[in-house]
Amino acid sequence: MSPTTDVLQARFERLRSNKLFELLVISIILMSALLIGAKTYSLPPLANQLVLILDWGITLFFLVEISIRFMGESDKKRFFRSGWNVFDTLIVVVSLIPIEDSELALIGRLVRIFRVLRMVSIIPELRTLLNSLLAALPQLGYVMLMMFIIFYIYAAVGTTFFADINDTLWGDISISLLTLFRIMTFEDWTDVMYETMAVYPLSWVFYLSFIFLSAFAFLNMIIGIVVNVLEEEQQRQARADALAAGEPTLAELRDEIRGLQQLLQQQVDQQRPAA
Amino acid sequence: MSPTTDVLQARFERLRSNKLFELLVISIILMSALLIGAKTYSLPPLANQLVLILDWGITLFFLVEISIRFMGESDKKRFFRSGWNVFDTLIVVVSLIPIEDSELALIGRLVRIFRVLRMVSIIPELRTLLNSLLAALPQLGYVMLMMFIIFYIYAAVGTTFFADINDTLWGDISISLLTLFRIMTFEDWTDVMYETMAVYPLSWVFYLSFIFLSAFAFLNMIIGIVVNVLEEEQQRQARADALAAGEPTLAELRDEIRGLQQLLQQQVDQQRPAA
Amino acid sequence: MSPTTDVLQARFERLRSNKLFELLVISIILMSALLIGAKTYSLPPLANQLVLILDWGITLFFLVEISIRFMGESDKKRFFRSGWNVFDTLIVVVSLIPIEDSELALIGRLVRIFRVLRMVSIIPELRTLLNSLLAALPQLGYVMLMMFIIFYIYAAVGTTFFADINDTLWGDISISLLTLFRIMTFEDWTDVMYETMAVYPLSWVFYLSFIFLSAFAFLNMIIGIVVNVLEEEQQRQARADALAAGEPTLAELRDEIRGLQQLLQQQVDQQRPAA
Amino acid sequence: MSPTTDVLQARFERLRSNKLFELLVISIILMSALLIGAKTYSLPPLANQLVLILDWGITLFFLVEISIRFMGESDKKRFFRSGWNVFDTLIVVVSLIPIEDSELALIGRLVRIFRVLRMVSIIPELRTLLNSLLAALPQLGYVMLMMFIIFYIYAAVGTTFFADINDTLWGDISISLLTLFRIMTFEDWTDVMYETMAVYPLSWVFYLSFIFLSAFAFLNMIIGIVVNVLEEEQQRQARADALAAGEPTLAELRDEIRGLQQLLQQQVDQQRPAA
Repeated sequence: MSPTTDVLQARFERLRSNKLFELLVISIILMSALLIGAKTYSLPPLANQLVLILDWGITLFFLVEISIRFMGESDKKRFFRSGWNVFDTLIVVVSLIPIEDSELALIGRLVRIFRVLRMVSIIPELRTLLNSLLAALPQLGYVMLMMFIIFYIYAAVGTTFFADINDTLWGDISISLLTLFRIMTFEDWTDVMYETMAVYPLSWVFYLSFIFLSAFAFLNMIIGIVVNVLEEEQQRQARADALAAGEPTLAELRDEIRGLQQLLQQQVDQQRPAA
Repeated sequence: MSPTTDVLQARFERLRSNKLFELLVISIILMSALLIGAKTYSLPPLANQLVLILDWGITLFFLVEISIRFMGESDKKRFFRSGWNVFDTLIVVVSLIPIEDSELALIGRLVRIFRVLRMVSIIPELRTLLNSLLAALPQLGYVMLMMFIIFYIYAAVGTTFFADINDTLWGDISISLLTLFRIMTFEDWTDVMYETMAVYPLSWVFYLSFIFLSAFAFLNMIIGIVVNVLEEEQQRQARADALAAGEPTLAELRDEIRGLQQLLQQQVDQQRPAA
Repeated sequence: MSPTTDVLQARFERLRSNKLFELLVISIILMSALLIGAKTYSLPPLANQLVLILDWGITLFFLVEISIRFMGESDKKRFFRSGWNVFDTLIVVVSLIPIEDSELALIGRLVRIFRVLRMVSIIPELRTLLNSLLAALPQLGYVMLMMFIIFYIYAAVGTTFFADINDTLWGDISISLLTLFRIMTFEDWTDVMYETMAVYPLSWVFYLSFIFLSAFAFLNMIIGIVVNVLEEEQQRQARADALAAGEPTLAELRDEIRGLQQLLQQQVDQQRPAA
Repeated sequence: MSPTTDVLQARFERLRSNKLFELLVISIILMSALLIGAKTYSLPPLANQLVLILDWGITLFFLVEISIRFMGESDKKRFFRSGWNVFDTLIVVVSLIPIEDSELALIGRLVRIFRVLRMVSIIPELRTLLNSLLAALPQLGYVMLMMFIIFYIYAAVGTTFFADINDTLWGDISISLLTLFRIMTFEDWTDVMYETMAVYPLSWVFYLSFIFLSAFAFLNMIIGIVVNVLEEEQQRQARADALAAGEPTLAELRDEIRGLQQLLQQQVDQQRPAA
């Protein structure tokens, strides 16, 4: 690598971590979000023209920005190891492709919408938040599996009995799963129940047991998260407290007392021959 | 028991606790779940034929699997003491019975659906989860009794006053209990209220007081569970901490100090005759 | 008081705290609850006759029971100081009055329903539960006052603007309060909103700000209760732990060390004149 | 400042912090709240007259009261530094302006309604409560930003796909945001979903993923608040406990033991020359 490239890379690296540059990027993302919102209103032709120009300006800015980030990285391979960098690059590259086909135009619009997600990749606090959200998911694995088993069994039973009563609610297992989710959110669940109770008067057992089971499993899930969060918090706090206050542990205190005991024993031993 | 049987039993026992065997069983259960789902769609005749064959294959596999489990158990009596083993055997035996009657065919279908529950009996983590869910229930006994008393009194009052207004909602005490559960989930509860307010303008007192009481009792129930879970967690944590760090208790520290005191007293006593 | 009365009183007191007697009372209350439920169904004349007889039997039994309780109390004045005793007596006395007027017959039926509440007065665990529920209320006083102020202001604003749009929802301040409670439970709140948005397009601000404010205040209330419960639990636990383990406090440990210090100082002083 | 003014100021200051005066102000605010409520009913002309007179009486009383507060303040500049004083003064001044125009009359009515908020400025406990509510908000900043990003992206996607299906629900981005909020409260969300599923059968993915994401973010927000509140509570409790019981810290105990060590060392040193 020539020394000029090195100098350039260092300059880009400095620019990349510049606070003002970050603010500029955030405000451009905000502007892109506003543009997306504006496009959902019916605008006069002139405003539409302006929106189009601004849109291309933003795409260009993002291209420049991602290039600076890439050039500013000393180890080029490491750049694409970060999921966020890959996401950012993809968003920029796809929005560069000129699209004319109406089918693909939709994808172009979606990509422009997902540019708002770049907010998360830029603001470190949001990134941390998302990571902590994702970190909480795996602990819930088994509770979610249990919940899916409950849903699946109830959906299968529901389809078996109620498919003939209402085909749009209980027609096949995937429709039944959706209906059960609706029941779990209490969304007009009695309408669904009264309809089947007209045929099977005891079908309220099906609905009530499902609501109790799913609510109970859901509650368990939430308690699981709360306990986890509180525990981590307590451990972090305990460590911080111990470090900050220079508080000795009980074990250290015991060692001090034992030292004292040895000293005293030594003294007793010394005096015995003198006696 | 002949030595051959012993060898066979040991071999089955090893197979039973084999990780690969467990994975095979889980994937067969998954396939059985998919089959149940597939059967809820209207399939072409060929696929139907395939589903039927697969279904019998799964039944056969489960029969073999439960036999292996039974043979692998050294103490045959203990096998049926586990609720899960009884459940597994029942599911397999019932699905073996050839059913032709349309009434019983329904039971056959239900048994096949409940085979998905075998997932819980196979995966140890799910079994533990379910046990901990069941263990939390008895603590709630009195809160649930209180809640039922609230429901019962409101249902009796509701039937007394509103039975003439809407027979399908307040006709008798069991219908009223269902209506009250609906009100507790906030499902179109104002429709129910507005109807009775047309006759008894003050009946909103009935609904609002019920919502407050049941919400309050429900909240209490949840808090009860949360407190219980947190406490158990804390005790478990405290025990684990104490064990891990070899931290002495305050009582141990006191004993060390008292040892010191005795030593010192001894020294004082030693010096007195010397004086 | 003659010695015979004394003997009788002691006998009644023993009977009152007898476990079997308590069980009998509970089962009579349960039967009375079942009777109340049975009466909401249309029964054949014979069953109706039976219900009537059983009803008078229960009233008689309760009269005897409350008399035993009263006689068993050594200090007659203290008997009516307990709210539950007053409640029990009232329920029994009112259900003794023969009622023929249809208006008053309703009161008779209500009194019979409230007999189920005697369950709470009989089972000590339920009484404790209710007391702890009631004890939690005053702490919430200010949050509830705050919530009422929020409700009142929104109801006044709502009536001012929306009374002309929908008189049955926003007609006067009490109807508006009821409508706001409905919105807080998310019960068809968008129907209410869409109606006023047709006249005042910005009225969504009213609904959304109300939902946020009330949800926030409500959340605060729940957190307040949880924190209180957890704290009490922790204190109770801490006290129990300290008592159970005979664990000394840190202050006791300090006192032991100081005692040691004095002993040592004394020894040092003793040796000085000897030197 | 003349001595007379000083005397007057001191007298007003005493009056201001008088408990009886506070009670009087609270009851006047309560009466003003009742008046606001009364005005929403259609009253006879005489009562209307009375309400009008009482209304002016209350305005006058508030004017006098705010004047006393202002005069009672020794540092006049500091008076308007408190937001509550500014709010109180504004409310009083605006309700003094005689309004005849019907447009402005509405503002006059609103100002009278907001007088109820003076309850918060008068009762210190409510003021503290509100401050603690407001103090909890900034911590939620990033979670709320994250939630808004989720809402915005879903609203943009929803408008792109569903605007042609239902213009009143998905017409532009602000309407879509409102519709998403409705979905988050589970208010007839299936009606919205079934409508778009008729055109895009897979659109349930949109709704379910939104519900999961927003519920998850919301849950995180609540847990965040709970953890914060519990932590503050624990710290406050720990400090209070330590102060109340005169409990020494572990570090203090260590210092006591070290003092003992020095004393002992001193004794050893004393004896050595003597040996």
